[in-house]
Amino acid sequence: MNKPITVRFEPQGISAPAHEGDNLLEIARSVGVGIAASCGGDGVCGTCRVSIKKGDVETSPGSILCNEDVANGVRLACQTRILTDLIVYVLPEAQAPASSGHLRSLVTREEVMAASGWRFAPPVFKLFIALPPPNLRDNSSDLTRLARALESHGIENPSIALAFLKKLPGAVRECNWKITLTALKEQHGLRLIDVEGGDTRDRNYGIAFDIGTTGIRGELLDLNEGKVLAQGVEYNGQRAYGDDVISRINYSGKRDGLTQLQRAVVSTMNKIASDMASRASVNTSQIAHVMVAANTTMVQLMTGVEPKYLRLEPYVPTASVFPVVSAGEIGLDLGYDVPVSTIPSVASYIGGDIVSGLVGTGIFQRSDTVLYIDIGTNGEIVVGNREWMVSASCSAGPAFEGGGIRHGMLATAGAIESFRIGADGSPNITTIGGDKPRGICGAGLISAISALYLNGIINQRGKFNIEASKHVRDGEDGPEYLLVQAGETSIGKDIVLTEIDVENLIRAKGAMYAGYQTLLASVDLTFDGLVNVIVAGTFGSHLDIEDAITIGLLPDIDRGKFVFVGNGSLLGARLSSFSTELIEAGRKVAGLITNIELSENVSFMENYTASMFLPHTDASLFPSVSHGVIKSGGTQST
Amino acid sequence: MNKPITVRFEPQGISAPAHEGDNLLEIARSVGVGIAASCGGDGVCGTCRVSIKKGDVETSPGSILCNEDVANGVRLACQTRILTDLIVYVLPEAQAPASSGHLRSLVTREEVMAASGWRFAPPVFKLFIALPPPNLRDNSSDLTRLARALESHGIENPSIALAFLKKLPGAVRECNWKITLTALKEQHGLRLIDVEGGDTRDRNYGIAFDIGTTGIRGELLDLNEGKVLAQGVEYNGQRAYGDDVISRINYSGKRDGLTQLQRAVVSTMNKIASDMASRASVNTSQIAHVMVAANTTMVQLMTGVEPKYLRLEPYVPTASVFPVVSAGEIGLDLGYDVPVSTIPSVASYIGGDIVSGLVGTGIFQRSDTVLYIDIGTNGEIVVGNREWMVSASCSAGPAFEGGGIRHGMLATAGAIESFRIGADGSPNITTIGGDKPRGICGAGLISAISALYLNGIINQRGKFNIEASKHVRDGEDGPEYLLVQAGETSIGKDIVLTEIDVENLIRAKGAMYAGYQTLLASVDLTFDGLVNVIVAGTFGSHLDIEDAITIGLLPDIDRGKFVFVGNGSLLGARLSSFSTELIEAGRKVAGLITNIELSENVSFMENYTASMFLPHTDASLFPSVSHGVIKSGGTQST
Repeated sequence: MNKPITVRFEPQGISAPAHEGDNLLEIARSVGVGIAASCGGDGVCGTCRVSIKKGDVETSPGSILCNEDVANGVRLACQTRILTDLIVYVLPEAQAPASSGHLRSLVTREEVMAASGWRFAPPVFKLFIALPPPNLRDNSSDLTRLARALESHGIENPSIALAFLKKLPGAVRECNWKITLTALKEQHGLRLIDVEGGDTRDRNYGIAFDIGTTGIRGELLDLNEGKVLAQGVEYNGQRAYGDDVISRINYSGKRDGLTQLQRAVVSTMNKIASDMASRASVNTSQIAHVMVAANTTMVQLMTGVEPKYLRLEPYVPTASVFPVVSAGEIGLDLGYDVPVSTIPSVASYIGGDIVSGLVGTGIFQRSDTVLYIDIGTNGEIVVGNREWMVSASCSAGPAFEGGGIRHGMLATAGAIESFRIGADGSPNITTIGGDKPRGICGAGLISAISALYLNGIINQRGKFNIEASKHVRDGEDGPEYLLVQAGETSIGKDIVLTEIDVENLIRAKGAMYAGYQTLLASVDLTFDGLVNVIVAGTFGSHLDIEDAITIGLLPDIDRGKFVFVGNGSLLGARLSSFSTELIEAGRKVAGLITNIELSENVSFMENYTASMFLPHTDASLFPSVSHGVIKSGGTQST
Repeated sequence: MNKPITVRFEPQGISAPAHEGDNLLEIARSVGVGIAASCGGDGVCGTCRVSIKKGDVETSPGSILCNEDVANGVRLACQTRILTDLIVYVLPEAQAPASSGHLRSLVTREEVMAASGWRFAPPVFKLFIALPPPNLRDNSSDLTRLARALESHGIENPSIALAFLKKLPGAVRECNWKITLTALKEQHGLRLIDVEGGDTRDRNYGIAFDIGTTGIRGELLDLNEGKVLAQGVEYNGQRAYGDDVISRINYSGKRDGLTQLQRAVVSTMNKIASDMASRASVNTSQIAHVMVAANTTMVQLMTGVEPKYLRLEPYVPTASVFPVVSAGEIGLDLGYDVPVSTIPSVASYIGGDIVSGLVGTGIFQRSDTVLYIDIGTNGEIVVGNREWMVSASCSAGPAFEGGGIRHGMLATAGAIESFRIGADGSPNITTIGGDKPRGICGAGLISAISALYLNGIINQRGKFNIEASKHVRDGEDGPEYLLVQAGETSIGKDIVLTEIDVENLIRAKGAMYAGYQTLLASVDLTFDGLVNVIVAGTFGSHLDIEDAITIGLLPDIDRGKFVFVGNGSLLGARLSSFSTELIEAGRKVAGLITNIELSENVSFMENYTASMFLPHTDASLFPSVSHGVIKSGGTQST
């Protein structure tokens, strides 16, 4: 029954292998033939029109095509199953603006793991409708006219808001009663969120945001093509009010504090959105959807929902599944009713960012047990598989993102990402983009501390050995290491690493390691029982695995088990912008996870204290590192 | 099967006659026994708890009572059918705050006609819930906790907005996790619009508004008891921008015009709301619903939706069924998410005000054919019965509400409502409330012009006969009649009636009469074919039928056919605030009506011209009036 056949697409002139019963739209996409399908293949928008020139197909009943079209061989690709070899002509109105809408482009080259098998079906889509103009015999209202037309598309009782109604009379009369609707798929049906005159289906954009405590990353997405058009990153504007979630929550209790924090984070989001839109030449009025992955505190602060109970026992969030809010009501400079969706969270300190990572990387689909580590200001750890998951979080602080570090910065152009000491003792640095150094990012910090430790310039407690290098000197805050001289930087001053910087990083990595230990013990597992250790975080592709093991941030296990997935949270937000199936997966994952609270866990505190050394007080946990230290002559204090 | 039985309610000590199978809650209400049922008897709020002390009942399955309650004889009155004689104890928590919640009080004494047979079930209701407090073993989110509790009440996936979420964490912790929800019944389920700490079910209020082009009337309603707590009336603040809908629509086209008009009408609504709340000692934060009946232009101006297409051929409104909007987004000073519902309209000039009247007065339930006349700035006329209805509208102008009249005013205290000329030729006036005269309202104007005409002081064309009375004098605008001397007024100046006032009223009544004629002819009916002529309008109980016939505002037919229903629009808005069944009836009525456009109808223009006399150029249409004029010696110009 399922014999190999060939489908040839015109006018592209591309042939695709297929099997009997395959969906025609999916086969087109598998070979990069762009067919517009603004509803994502649900059969409601009527855009993916093709003409079958040769061969047999089977079409789902209830199609919205008129009889004349059907008689002429016109079909909706999304509703069509292939029966024999075909020649298919993609009608001009269905030819996607570019042929690059290939599903492989949904995941960038750096992303080595991603959810699979999902259908491209964004939560918002556009729908083009030509309404019959009114006359004195039929002067029913604009909305009645629209409702009648929607009924013929199988859409009944859509929800609408006042802003939509305000735009309606102008829009219907702009292009002789031809309009394009933007619709959001909701639990109970469709919500119409925008209406434009004429046919604007080729412009349908979204934004995915990863809102971290320290940094905010965004991606501007083409919701027709499934492409990333631009990326952006900025420090979270809330940093002015505290480094970590606890200090932010405390600040929110001050007079107007919550309002200030709410505005600060949205202001950063606005900057990222407008920068990305401008770089991609997209008008922000054409952005129709925002998907946010963030920790629970960030979600409550972004929406202005009182966060104080997140940090008071028993640590209760206001909501784990947030309702869709509108851009306007939180102050985003997009269309007022643009829906802002949020990936569900699990508990106070296990947020939508980690759920997003578990979805985006496809861990929720895996049968083998893995450890997922998201390294950020709020470190989050999950162990499990598609059947069960247990999570924990530990406050690492902002050091991994350059926060609380004298010359710390985000992993952007000019950040030192790697540091080596040559045979002659001279430092050798690499920066992102090869620019003149501006500062040091998390990966660079780990690299530098690792190298200094291996060369005996800092000891296991993170203290400088002033004798060990001519680059160590006395600075304002005690001993410091000169990474780059002022003249070689782009900031015109020495870039240094201070003993306080090292202490901050040791605290951060100690919290992470104690977290892994405590979490694994809670489910009677060890590192050896894991198939993979998946490392997410804003290091991107910069983190060196040996450096991370040397300082004790990652366990000293078979290197082949590690997988670096970059920003898993942003990946999940992006893919969830492309498929309602992944939004649904997020809800399921959030419900699947059991969280354990580390903050009052005695064994966590013991593990944490023991982790406050390089790499660890228990050297037997890091056999390959101890060896390295001895070889390079570093001091051993235990 | 349906034998007469007796139900005795304790502790009230009231007995009610009933039949086997009757609903226990309805029987309680029929004799004025107050049982709280905040959901209106849908079985979801669980408040109407009674204990059956003696006798047999049948309870609907799926009750939300716990097993222990059921074993102890506790039942929900709304879900209980009476089988035998009963003694019923109304549990303390279900005893309504006052026993005056008798359905008869839903209609005031002046209202001689009202819809019947509907169930008391307001679109918003309150629901009290005790949530299990969280602890470290169950620290799921506030919203998850609430959703679980609602599920046990049979409520799944309620919609919520951000403002609700912002209130939630504070409210649940205010009274040890006991909360009262305010819920709106929507097409797809429930929307939670408010949450308060503790049990606030006894405070549930709504406002009904009739928004006229000239005057706005409001009623503050107790949504538990079905009572009117206060009434209010003010001139529409938009009057500063034009007297009728056409001039308002024109003004809305100016720069910021629409915004100014939108703010003006909402500002008047705010004044009426706060005055009523203050008089009834109700906090405006406890007002949970607003129901608006208004003409199509007023609805679009109130919501800020571009009205210009209403007056351009082919006269298309933006919506006939408006979505529920929130108080906050239109600027009403109530809770931001308080739902503002609107009675559906039919066409550009047949608005929700008339649909509301057809529902409120019960005309939609009648099998006999009637003519319904709503006399206002925009005169609206409907002929039909429960099977069919045809409507027309004619722009009468604001004269009936005192607009465009030198000393015109709304029908409030101090307005001249009746004018007679004694045998000695001296004027005799009556004012509303017996106060010193401040001005003259529509009913007074009709009364005065009728008397002056019958006494030959004005002629059939509305011109003064200076010789006929010593009270006629030359004023700024030509001849005028001195109604009250300055010394006897509360405004300290003469109250007069000018020839221009008379002309305005003749134009207004002429438009109405021509409207009846044209509409009836369009369905091949005459006044004789009507069972009733139902007169609605802001005259309230003040209009004298003989005066109205004398000037030609009402047809000269058997007086027994006339029914004065007062403000039918406000009555419908009030009753629709009490029952979702009547909201649904409004949708059906709006869909049932066929509208005919008079503005370009040739026979309407001919009828209008012929109506511009007192009472009419065709004296045979007003046999009893002609007679009166002759008797009193008035001039006859035809």
